[in-house]
Amino acid sequence: MYRTHTCGELRITDKGRKVTLAGWVQKSRKLGGMTFIDLRDRYGITQLVVEADAPQELVDTATSLGREFVIQVEGEVVERQSKNPKMDTGDIEIKVDAIRILNKSVTPPFTIEDESDGGEDIRAKYRYLDLRRNPLKNALTLRHRIAHEVRNYLDDKCFLEIETPYLIKSTPEGARDFVVPSRMNPGQFYALPQSPQTFKQLLMVAGYDRYFQIVRCFRDEDLRADRQPEFTQIDCEMSFVEQEDVLNTFEGMMRTLFHNVLGVEIPNPLPRMSWYDAMDHYGSDKPDVRFGMTIHEITETAKGKGFGVLDGAAYIGAIAVPSAADYTRKQIDELTEWVKRPQVGAKGLIYIKVNTDGTFKSSIDKFYAPEDLAKIAAVTEAKSGDLILVLSGDNKRKVQNMLGVLRIEMGNRLGLRDPKVFAPLWIVDFPLLEWDDETQRFYAMHHPFTAPKPEHEKWFYSNAKEDLERVCANAYDFVLNGTELGGGSIRIHNADMQKRMFEVLGIGPEEAEYKFGFIINAFKFGAPPHGGLAFGFDRVCALFGGQDTIRDYIAFPKNNQGRDVMIDSPSEIDQVQLDELQIDVRKNG
Amino acid sequence: MYRTHTCGELRITDKGRKVTLAGWVQKSRKLGGMTFIDLRDRYGITQLVVEADAPQELVDTATSLGREFVIQVEGEVVERQSKNPKMDTGDIEIKVDAIRILNKSVTPPFTIEDESDGGEDIRAKYRYLDLRRNPLKNALTLRHRIAHEVRNYLDDKCFLEIETPYLIKSTPEGARDFVVPSRMNPGQFYALPQSPQTFKQLLMVAGYDRYFQIVRCFRDEDLRADRQPEFTQIDCEMSFVEQEDVLNTFEGMMRTLFHNVLGVEIPNPLPRMSWYDAMDHYGSDKPDVRFGMTIHEITETAKGKGFGVLDGAAYIGAIAVPSAADYTRKQIDELTEWVKRPQVGAKGLIYIKVNTDGTFKSSIDKFYAPEDLAKIAAVTEAKSGDLILVLSGDNKRKVQNMLGVLRIEMGNRLGLRDPKVFAPLWIVDFPLLEWDDETQRFYAMHHPFTAPKPEHEKWFYSNAKEDLERVCANAYDFVLNGTELGGGSIRIHNADMQKRMFEVLGIGPEEAEYKFGFIINAFKFGAPPHGGLAFGFDRVCALFGGQDTIRDYIAFPKNNQGRDVMIDSPSEIDQVQLDELQIDVRKNG
Repeated sequence: MYRTHTCGELRITDKGRKVTLAGWVQKSRKLGGMTFIDLRDRYGITQLVVEADAPQELVDTATSLGREFVIQVEGEVVERQSKNPKMDTGDIEIKVDAIRILNKSVTPPFTIEDESDGGEDIRAKYRYLDLRRNPLKNALTLRHRIAHEVRNYLDDKCFLEIETPYLIKSTPEGARDFVVPSRMNPGQFYALPQSPQTFKQLLMVAGYDRYFQIVRCFRDEDLRADRQPEFTQIDCEMSFVEQEDVLNTFEGMMRTLFHNVLGVEIPNPLPRMSWYDAMDHYGSDKPDVRFGMTIHEITETAKGKGFGVLDGAAYIGAIAVPSAADYTRKQIDELTEWVKRPQVGAKGLIYIKVNTDGTFKSSIDKFYAPEDLAKIAAVTEAKSGDLILVLSGDNKRKVQNMLGVLRIEMGNRLGLRDPKVFAPLWIVDFPLLEWDDETQRFYAMHHPFTAPKPEHEKWFYSNAKEDLERVCANAYDFVLNGTELGGGSIRIHNADMQKRMFEVLGIGPEEAEYKFGFIINAFKFGAPPHGGLAFGFDRVCALFGGQDTIRDYIAFPKNNQGRDVMIDSPSEIDQVQLDELQIDVRKNG
Repeated sequence: MYRTHTCGELRITDKGRKVTLAGWVQKSRKLGGMTFIDLRDRYGITQLVVEADAPQELVDTATSLGREFVIQVEGEVVERQSKNPKMDTGDIEIKVDAIRILNKSVTPPFTIEDESDGGEDIRAKYRYLDLRRNPLKNALTLRHRIAHEVRNYLDDKCFLEIETPYLIKSTPEGARDFVVPSRMNPGQFYALPQSPQTFKQLLMVAGYDRYFQIVRCFRDEDLRADRQPEFTQIDCEMSFVEQEDVLNTFEGMMRTLFHNVLGVEIPNPLPRMSWYDAMDHYGSDKPDVRFGMTIHEITETAKGKGFGVLDGAAYIGAIAVPSAADYTRKQIDELTEWVKRPQVGAKGLIYIKVNTDGTFKSSIDKFYAPEDLAKIAAVTEAKSGDLILVLSGDNKRKVQNMLGVLRIEMGNRLGLRDPKVFAPLWIVDFPLLEWDDETQRFYAMHHPFTAPKPEHEKWFYSNAKEDLERVCANAYDFVLNGTELGGGSIRIHNADMQKRMFEVLGIGPEEAEYKFGFIINAFKFGAPPHGGLAFGFDRVCALFGGQDTIRDYIAFPKNNQGRDVMIDSPSEIDQVQLDELQIDVRKNG
């Protein structure tokens, strides 16, 4: 061993101890003939001091050290003259007797500090240096801790972690599958799994009634911000359970994580919100409930005053932005432009200021008397000093969605989205089916194996469109601070119900056999009632770390073009490899 | 929840309790009007009884149940008339009040019993049914348990589990890489990792001084028996360590596994054997030390008696097979044919029987007097009643290897290889370099980043071939019962030493840059001394389970052609997918 202690553990109680440390030179400075060196490792920083009267060779070595040199030092723990209360090791320093340079370093292309001077691109290229910085080290340490707590919780609950294969089969709708040509089976391909969904259901058929896996998944899709072609899921499935059992088990898991990892207590039981309420009041199926400012429908209240835009709208909704009545004209204009961007898509923005003197000021004063505005203020629960923002349109869900986006934006602007506050909840009672006007058919909102709620089965077997539209799924999402962290469903295990589902979705027996034949066949051999869910592990880690972006929580992420710029991948391969695989790359043009 | 208890937990102390169970019908039988049903789940089997005087509907339902039906039953725990001491639940049965069929099953294609009537192929196709059998369930449960214990041990020791990417870059010598075409980067490919070697070394450069990962690895090679294209490693790396630290840490891990999982105590410290001793005495770098029968060189003892075969041999070796002097002529002839098979490759086999009456009988009696044979018996430590088997040839290591294979075979025949006996050890002091006569150059025995033993560095920098040949590597293998379970090395972290290594291997600066440039560059930024190892997790599980083959310890394995016959993969993919990937499959012919 090159050290007796790490750079994070020595304290004043170790005073007088002879120690050996090893690590990286964070920085060094000369002060009155003495050389001070900050020595860093994974565990912290310890200050070293080479006295002015030390042997010349030692002084010379100390002087020669550059940033990020790897050194080993021997010395004695002494009490510091000027203590640093910000550092765990700040009461002591090491009076150095010997320095051994284990490895030199060329000058790193950016500073290894909490706030680096390096841009994103250069840090990505030298990821192994970026990973030396505390924010990334803390992120990966947190990730390890969360994974470990997840495993302990699930092991305690009799779950088995079972590894499912990575080389599987491309599905008929596998546009997003990464494929892997097989050398031993020329012309044939494996596919990398988008999730282990099929395999975990097969494990239920096989009788492994509590399965989990922290597992990599792959999706070859255009990468929006903060998506990765490979990502990690906490994938879970249970047999002989109803929705209630799944929710209890996994909110218990999240409660344990919050408690053990962050020391945060979340409500027991967790709040649940129906998908309909989430859409109506938050304009989102992943509501951020850390703050209010909920959406209120004012369709009836606002109509009939002769203002064409609202009179002609199918739906009018509003949010009351707290204490924002002092927004200037310029601010409101900017906000109007903001909602008109294609990302939001509103045609315009109506505002009503609820002034502190009891008056109103709005962009629709021409049509609305103060008492009309007061009614709107009452419905939106606006208080004195609030700013009411109104959107309208001919599609209720679309307008609610815009209001939801606006609500989040205002929450951000007002600092209502504190990353240290955690407001988890379940979203339940999703519609089972979505009607598509264009193709005039229903689609499964989750997937075609999701079961209807038992009490809605009567509608599920009805042929009336309005009955089918109100069937809720036995499905659930775990939402935290405006982000969907996980979701799942109770699956259909009954052959007749599955047949009915295919019928509703307009999937004929042949198509069903072609697309799902394999799993349908397995289900003939005694499939138990089962259900499960999956959490996006990268995102769980990021949110626990108080960050919006997952990139720092992945050791070696890819960029938005799906490239690993550090190793320069993907890349061309040898002709020999192509020959062995019996494939050709098409020429450009 | 569909059940109050599992099928494995009810005991006589639960007598009188009203319970609900759910599971699969293992079997049912009528006996004097009563129906007995064995109900199975992951946790065990509980006997159900439907009384003769039960309501007719219940009797009818019970009678209708087929094998592998999924049912839910309500009833009362009662004491059995005839107890079954072989079953944990054997003291009780459930007097059934109600049965609900949750799902029917068609007749499975083979019996779900410990010893199934299904052949390997049919069981592979219906793996989800095979997985219901106890031997597989126990195998996967053991696997979960071992993984969990590994993680607990390493977490306790401050190791961080860090996920490395699966979509990486094909290496210049990547003939065995699976590659993955990138849709977003047409003409370019990712590769699936054969191991996370590069990334774990980068994590050391990044300062994560204790890393591990239970990680999938991929190798597109012709599959010999008991190899899988995807397999799992326990991958580990440490910084600021010497070989001794790595060995101590990981024999501690194995000791904990043996203790916690099997209740077996292994020696502390573990035995270590040099590679040279392993080759000389066991003819293998993964010796099975559960039994003796070691190889003895008798070159000097056996030469010079006028028997041309031996007189002309460069090396003569022998093993003394205990109590096998009564082998018949037929048995010895069969053994002779056995060693002459190409898999062993011997030209012939000489035997010497050490008869219990003090006489010798050998195939070389014509050339060797009894006192000559007695000398050989003395050297081989043969006892009265033993059978000495002799092989010779002009290449010492080749003959030793044949003797090693023969030794294992005789160990099997004599029942000396008890899977319940565990004899782990470290193999150390491997040669760093292997001379290849054909190309007249040295090759790295492990890989070109393996460091020489510090005390052999003087020879490493010598230019004499005999000096270089005797340099030992700072490398080590963990061997259990004749199987290599893991191995690793201390890596070179010093640029000058790495340069020397390339020089010794005849790799010029340009080739080094092309092949290893990326990692060499990373090492310029302060690489710490580091080393590590990886265990073959599938094999660890199999050996802990007392099995030779890994297939039962993998939930969904592939066959020897790399195919998953259950999902029928690999398979052809859609033209649309090929078009998106900009690749073509070559036509046969």
